[in-house]
Amino acid sequence: MAFFRIVRKDSHSKARAGILHTAHGSIQTPVFMPVGTQATVKTLSPADLRAVKAQIILNNTYHLYLRPGAALVCEAGGVQKFSAWKGPILTDSGGYQVFSLAALNKITADGFRFQSHIDGSRHFFSPEKVVEIQRDLGSDIMMVLDECAPYPCDYAYARKAHRLTIDWALRSRKAFAEIKERHGYPQYQFAIVQGSVYPDLRRDSARALVDMDFPGYGIGGLSVGEPKKEMFEMTDIVTDILPANKPRYLMGVGKPEDLLDGIERGVDMFDCIMPTRNGRNGTAFTSHGQLVIKNAKFKRQFIPLDEPCDCYTCRTFTRAYLRHLFNAQEVLVLRLISLHNVHFYVQLMRRARQAILAGAFMPFKKEFLEHYRKSSE
Amino acid sequence: MAFFRIVRKDSHSKARAGILHTAHGSIQTPVFMPVGTQATVKTLSPADLRAVKAQIILNNTYHLYLRPGAALVCEAGGVQKFSAWKGPILTDSGGYQVFSLAALNKITADGFRFQSHIDGSRHFFSPEKVVEIQRDLGSDIMMVLDECAPYPCDYAYARKAHRLTIDWALRSRKAFAEIKERHGYPQYQFAIVQGSVYPDLRRDSARALVDMDFPGYGIGGLSVGEPKKEMFEMTDIVTDILPANKPRYLMGVGKPEDLLDGIERGVDMFDCIMPTRNGRNGTAFTSHGQLVIKNAKFKRQFIPLDEPCDCYTCRTFTRAYLRHLFNAQEVLVLRLISLHNVHFYVQLMRRARQAILAGAFMPFKKEFLEHYRKSSE
Repeated sequence: MAFFRIVRKDSHSKARAGILHTAHGSIQTPVFMPVGTQATVKTLSPADLRAVKAQIILNNTYHLYLRPGAALVCEAGGVQKFSAWKGPILTDSGGYQVFSLAALNKITADGFRFQSHIDGSRHFFSPEKVVEIQRDLGSDIMMVLDECAPYPCDYAYARKAHRLTIDWALRSRKAFAEIKERHGYPQYQFAIVQGSVYPDLRRDSARALVDMDFPGYGIGGLSVGEPKKEMFEMTDIVTDILPANKPRYLMGVGKPEDLLDGIERGVDMFDCIMPTRNGRNGTAFTSHGQLVIKNAKFKRQFIPLDEPCDCYTCRTFTRAYLRHLFNAQEVLVLRLISLHNVHFYVQLMRRARQAILAGAFMPFKKEFLEHYRKSSE
Repeated sequence: MAFFRIVRKDSHSKARAGILHTAHGSIQTPVFMPVGTQATVKTLSPADLRAVKAQIILNNTYHLYLRPGAALVCEAGGVQKFSAWKGPILTDSGGYQVFSLAALNKITADGFRFQSHIDGSRHFFSPEKVVEIQRDLGSDIMMVLDECAPYPCDYAYARKAHRLTIDWALRSRKAFAEIKERHGYPQYQFAIVQGSVYPDLRRDSARALVDMDFPGYGIGGLSVGEPKKEMFEMTDIVTDILPANKPRYLMGVGKPEDLLDGIERGVDMFDCIMPTRNGRNGTAFTSHGQLVIKNAKFKRQFIPLDEPCDCYTCRTFTRAYLRHLFNAQEVLVLRLISLHNVHFYVQLMRRARQAILAGAFMPFKKEFLEHYRKSSE
């Protein structure tokens, strides 16, 4: 069975509906991957994730390497057995977290030297080391170590980061072949396209990585502060080069409208902390835009967060009660809104897929945005 | 249908198995009531509570009166409709919280004057006012306002508190008759026996309240620091006086072994924050005693919290993973251990009831304690 198969291509955009096959189940794309940094999607149990029909979650290599440690997860039989999430898992490479969280990090041609944000202990991530960690973790899809250039970033820096990423991708591919899987099932390694907001670097990056024949491609270094216009221009340039028969993953993106813009440009996979982080801040995504639950106007609203929604939260609780829980600092509400938000994202991807299959993605997108941007409340 | 019916009495102790009927469902006794202070059992959803077969929960009048306010709960259609917990609810009177939480409280013959612990606003609770609030809330069982004497407490103070409690019980009974229910279903009012650790006061209190013919009786002012021996002596004295055909509720008790000691002395109902509070501290109740999940010895234990347990947590997760979640400060673990602990308490009551029905309560108690006190790990 092929790892990835396109089921239908849209004729009015670059949107595609596909299927990804992994040892832990098949994934219908386009797909949103909830972020489960520490081998848990914050506030949600595996049963909650199944209830909202999440298909695949993301775990963070950097975090799991530091705590509880890759050896412990390996001993448990891999991250699925460790965490009891039995579906597919993608792990990032940890490079982004080294830059954003770790102290005293230093990058060399060999890799990252850094100190743990937890206890200050010293560590080193090379492309090979990151493959080894991910073999221990046993994620279905593993990302290569890359250098994610910040924004803004001058051309020289962006080119240097891009070239390092290419060099590391090659080393990662080799390490992947040499270090065997440890849990008796296949894993898939994705490369990451870099190049900041420079079209020629993006093209060079994509072409070089395509030559290495990865089973899938991340588009990294976006959603780091650049204008939306540039983000989608870069995405467009890259998806024009990436092979049509391989999955594309726009890393760290984004808002509901961004996911639709990504799909339109041929992206298959997304991840973002927004549904869970906003959930914990008391902000819900609804068909009419975002809703801040602590707002006084919800005090006597005995209606669901989002009327058309059929998640547990919306079938069970009123805005008035959720607002009470939030004001009373009851942690239950963090779960209830996170659950709704993940459901909202998952449903958006399901509906987008159905629209692609029906040959009507662009009208679907237009209609969704018309409601979503009314921002009602 | 009678409000309460004894199904079987034990012949070797005062233990009873009974059934309580309320508008929101029947309750098999002995029963443990999880505490849902702010109209939510901390970290658990109504679906979680149903999954562990909780039959009735407790809500706090003081807290709900202050936030979100009794009028709002009334407008929602009562606390069941407000909170989406559709089963029976008992509300305490708020007197205990006024003493333990509120600032600048002052007690007079008329009631409690106090300031909110949330915003310092000034309030007054009389016996009548508390009935009125509970009519708004629509709890199935409502407790009268009482004065819970602290421990230690001299005889004169204890007698004064006991007499005030009797006076208020009479006023509460009258108010209950005068202030009608607001949600179209019957509510039941329980008195509270006081008298500190003084046998004659406990007897006087129980007798006076029995004369007022309440449908049920709380035993209050225990589990406030007195030795266990005195707590159960007082319980024994009181249950000898209370009518056999009415439910007895030992308020705020306790540890698993205390519940069994209470059942042995003829108690039918219990509430305690321990399963949920300990859950949030990372302490689990198991058939071999308490287990502190952060303990290093659990790091590589890929077995459930409690092997014989069939709750979601034990069916799904290992000690190693729960310990990881706790160390990583993931709120999910607070729910998972709370869920297990409430399940543990509910199961203990179910097994106690089965033992009573089988005429074997005392052997059951002995066997449970033999395992429980081994304290294993």
